[in-house]
Amino acid sequence: MFRTAERTAHGVRLIDQRKLPLEETYVELRSPEQVAQAIRDMVVRGAPAIGITAAFGLALGAKQTAAAQPQRFSEEMERILAHMESARPTAVNLAWAVRRMRDVMTERLANGGDPDDAVAALEREAQAIHDEDLAACKAMGAHGAALVPEQATVLTHCNAGGLATAGYGTALGVIRGAVEAGKRVRVLADETRPFLQGARLTAWELLADGIDTTLITDGMAGSLMRRGEIDLVVVGSDRIAANGDIANKIGTYTVAVLAKENGIPFYVAAPMSTIDFDCPDGDSIPIEERDPSEVTELFGTRVAPDGVGVRNPAFDITPARYVHAIVTERGVARPPYVTSLAAMRER
Amino acid sequence: MFRTAERTAHGVRLIDQRKLPLEETYVELRSPEQVAQAIRDMVVRGAPAIGITAAFGLALGAKQTAAAQPQRFSEEMERILAHMESARPTAVNLAWAVRRMRDVMTERLANGGDPDDAVAALEREAQAIHDEDLAACKAMGAHGAALVPEQATVLTHCNAGGLATAGYGTALGVIRGAVEAGKRVRVLADETRPFLQGARLTAWELLADGIDTTLITDGMAGSLMRRGEIDLVVVGSDRIAANGDIANKIGTYTVAVLAKENGIPFYVAAPMSTIDFDCPDGDSIPIEERDPSEVTELFGTRVAPDGVGVRNPAFDITPARYVHAIVTERGVARPPYVTSLAAMRER
Repeated sequence: MFRTAERTAHGVRLIDQRKLPLEETYVELRSPEQVAQAIRDMVVRGAPAIGITAAFGLALGAKQTAAAQPQRFSEEMERILAHMESARPTAVNLAWAVRRMRDVMTERLANGGDPDDAVAALEREAQAIHDEDLAACKAMGAHGAALVPEQATVLTHCNAGGLATAGYGTALGVIRGAVEAGKRVRVLADETRPFLQGARLTAWELLADGIDTTLITDGMAGSLMRRGEIDLVVVGSDRIAANGDIANKIGTYTVAVLAKENGIPFYVAAPMSTIDFDCPDGDSIPIEERDPSEVTELFGTRVAPDGVGVRNPAFDITPARYVHAIVTERGVARPPYVTSLAAMRER
Repeated sequence: MFRTAERTAHGVRLIDQRKLPLEETYVELRSPEQVAQAIRDMVVRGAPAIGITAAFGLALGAKQTAAAQPQRFSEEMERILAHMESARPTAVNLAWAVRRMRDVMTERLANGGDPDDAVAALEREAQAIHDEDLAACKAMGAHGAALVPEQATVLTHCNAGGLATAGYGTALGVIRGAVEAGKRVRVLADETRPFLQGARLTAWELLADGIDTTLITDGMAGSLMRRGEIDLVVVGSDRIAANGDIANKIGTYTVAVLAKENGIPFYVAAPMSTIDFDCPDGDSIPIEERDPSEVTELFGTRVAPDGVGVRNPAFDITPARYVHAIVTERGVARPPYVTSLAAMRER
């Protein structure tokens, strides 16, 4: 079984998601700067996995800085925290993990702890973020399985699987939960251009679990829905606004509109850490625009003429009105989300 | 200026569309079997261009068979006609061109013509099919330009351009017509997986004409519509049923649904030869399913794990209710198409 991200004696080890499915290789990063760069370069991606990786990178940075005087330690850590948070703008889990780590550090130092105390606490906190995510995904799987019919073809977009989390997955966690509950599930995976997470990652990890998986290009899902070949959609999210608007991989909005048009339920699965209660709606979520070469080049081969303009937003916003339910580790929220998500937070 | 397809002294010459945009190379085919194979392999694609290429290939076949006795000539030509017609199933223009060529041959031989007479008539007919298509595209451009605002961002899918026709194009003909009418048009081109006709062909031929063109992946169009960045959609078609249902490149239905959801007009441009009056509706149109490797491999690099299932329908059906107008060389048809298209046929 692969490990998405783990803390090693002297670094942070990641499965190199850019090499999948052809090679299962791992990289070991030896500084928080290298970890931030790996997040930027999408060695690791997926909102929860980015948060976990950032936490491990911050623990590593703390350990490497531990010898400093408390004041210097604190200043250096603030620099590392800010640098890590800037790696990618859309996924709220990154900012959430950074804040959680900063709070632990601040609390330790404020209560008379020395840098060594803070390092130990930060190591424990990073591992807790990892372990809680795994538990959350399994809980999402159990809650979400109830939404899946006994026999179903499920469409998913991008990769919201074990590779996007500590393991098990959010959207793919719901699928795994349904399979473990004995349901007969067949998965259709959108390839998800430009980065092909569906083809490379979702298909790979589902086949490894023996789940029947069929790959399609992003333009095919609509036609298959129209022909009655899809029973439900489940996707992950990089940030959920307080009103239930969903930021997720570019193309998610399209799938949601097609599902609505064809009377198919559209579900989102994400941990509570993905919900940004400070963000009133989707229009407040920053959308990362990535390098044009991700669109114009495929494995080093240029596919478009020189001089063409390119857009490459990495995410889109799906308004809450398209979302039939949001599955978290605490249960299944239904519209109106502004109240159901807030109630879930209080639990 | 490129030439999509032309008859040479001893063959049929095609621009090799699989090599674009990196290389502008031409292949010369020396038998009707080679022409049929080039259609199957998508050296040439686009419904009108397939019809034209098939007609040239049949003229070539007739010339090579001319020495035979009339009875042998007729039998051999029937074999060639049937083989050519089987090259691709969805585009009706192929069957239409084959039927037109067969009718010319039959008429000549029935009226006492010898094979040499038939060959000369078939050569003229093939050239007429080519020339009429070019004229039809220019007429479509003139009619369709009226649908484009003075300043507009136009989304198109796949390639319905000069490369899909004798030149000028159907959907891109409408865009060219609008530009020639002095309108300020910006084009957004869906890359159109799996074959990337948008990235490779549409962007190439529009940039060659100096038209402002921006490339996006297929999953981005919806989000850009939602953000108000697209004013209208225009696409081509491979077959139009009598009721106005549209067969076109996979992903077209998705674009149509997104346009409807966002209140954006969705137009189809195609010559009268694309309308199959014998076909009552879209469900009667055969949909070609192509090789899985088009989805799982990109330039020889495998992007999906072994063992994954693959669907690869090359076309989809867009029900007529999503189509705001159909532009042909005879004008602009509006719903209900069952009457407006029939009336257009009578003109």
